[in-house]
Amino acid sequence: MHRTKIRVTEDALDANETIARANRDDFDRAGVSVLNLMSAPGSGKTTLLERALKDLDSPRVGVLEGDVQGSLDADRLAGLHIPVTQLNTDSGFGGECHLDANMVHSAIPDLDLDEIDLLIVENVGNLVCPAEFRIGEDVKAMVASVAEGEDKPLKYPLMYRSCEMVVVNKIDLLPHVDFDMDRFLANVDAVNPGAEHLLVSARTGEGVDEWRAWLAGIPERAAAPA
Amino acid sequence: MHRTKIRVTEDALDANETIARANRDDFDRAGVSVLNLMSAPGSGKTTLLERALKDLDSPRVGVLEGDVQGSLDADRLAGLHIPVTQLNTDSGFGGECHLDANMVHSAIPDLDLDEIDLLIVENVGNLVCPAEFRIGEDVKAMVASVAEGEDKPLKYPLMYRSCEMVVVNKIDLLPHVDFDMDRFLANVDAVNPGAEHLLVSARTGEGVDEWRAWLAGIPERAAAPA
Repeated sequence: MHRTKIRVTEDALDANETIARANRDDFDRAGVSVLNLMSAPGSGKTTLLERALKDLDSPRVGVLEGDVQGSLDADRLAGLHIPVTQLNTDSGFGGECHLDANMVHSAIPDLDLDEIDLLIVENVGNLVCPAEFRIGEDVKAMVASVAEGEDKPLKYPLMYRSCEMVVVNKIDLLPHVDFDMDRFLANVDAVNPGAEHLLVSARTGEGVDEWRAWLAGIPERAAAPA
Repeated sequence: MHRTKIRVTEDALDANETIARANRDDFDRAGVSVLNLMSAPGSGKTTLLERALKDLDSPRVGVLEGDVQGSLDADRLAGLHIPVTQLNTDSGFGGECHLDANMVHSAIPDLDLDEIDLLIVENVGNLVCPAEFRIGEDVKAMVASVAEGEDKPLKYPLMYRSCEMVVVNKIDLLPHVDFDMDRFLANVDAVNPGAEHLLVSARTGEGVDEWRAWLAGIPERAAAPA
């Protein structure tokens, strides 16, 4: 039985790769770079996007909000006057715990790709499966909250390994939690030696300028020869 | 394609139900009550167990630790001198984001069921899929950290709906985060009107006595006629 389950999963991942490449072609034709932004629930992805995007004129950004249910995050971004599209994963049964390439593919007709240069896909809050499913992105980043603890890179290594950028959020809480930043960054380095990181607080605004600059640089970096 | 995926999932859930009932029979024969403890990554499940179990003599408790990789949490509990069994979900591919009945079934030979009255299963940190897979438990509980935000019951309703008990942890952080407890509890009530809750801080110890008493009462409540 376990063997069958693994084969189903491998088939699903193969199919996902094919559709992810099709998405990539669509994005390339439109000249749109794509960020897949992931994290655990409640790490602050949406707040960090609110903070960064309200003062970002160029590149032109659109957001695809992935959630199991509801449109709370999309509603929060509505005031930014940028295109925001909601994608829910709960059709059919209890709800998918991640976005896959086919779900993003189904949303492409709703994305005005000609109107944007950078698509930010806010994935479902989950440190496991989103890392396994490519969606046609140029770059993957994750947000880690200091409230989650310094051991998380070792407990969720695939997620930390899959991301080029680890944004460490809620650093305003550092005096109030047991979180050793040096040990956390050593844990990130242990599973993903090349990863960049930024230290930010969406609440106080510390580090948000650097985060905004990193987002703004995605299209240029994606266009540069590897 | 989406239809196929849903059918695969429904078949998997049917098979899971069958195995969960077999687990239940095994636990009943041994007179063991089972708690399925769930949460997002970093909400503090392990620390709350450390705090509660070090001063709990009766009932006799064993812990089954579910993690994608590693044994960090099991190692932390090793000092408690209670039986702790590690169950990793990463065999085969990137790692399952939840425990299912079959994984728990595979661990039963390693659990000294005759030596314990209460088995606490610490599920993989994830607010989506663990809620969909019964494992043969008597009761489901979840831990929510105030750092995660007050909107989470509305974003992950299946998880909040599946649990009889919501333990709100890290209340020592309340002065430092934007978290309206009344609104959070109203959100819990909106998706799960009958749910109990406890307010605790694993860091300061506030509410830990009530949490320990709730854990200790599981076998008696499970034995009471419905």
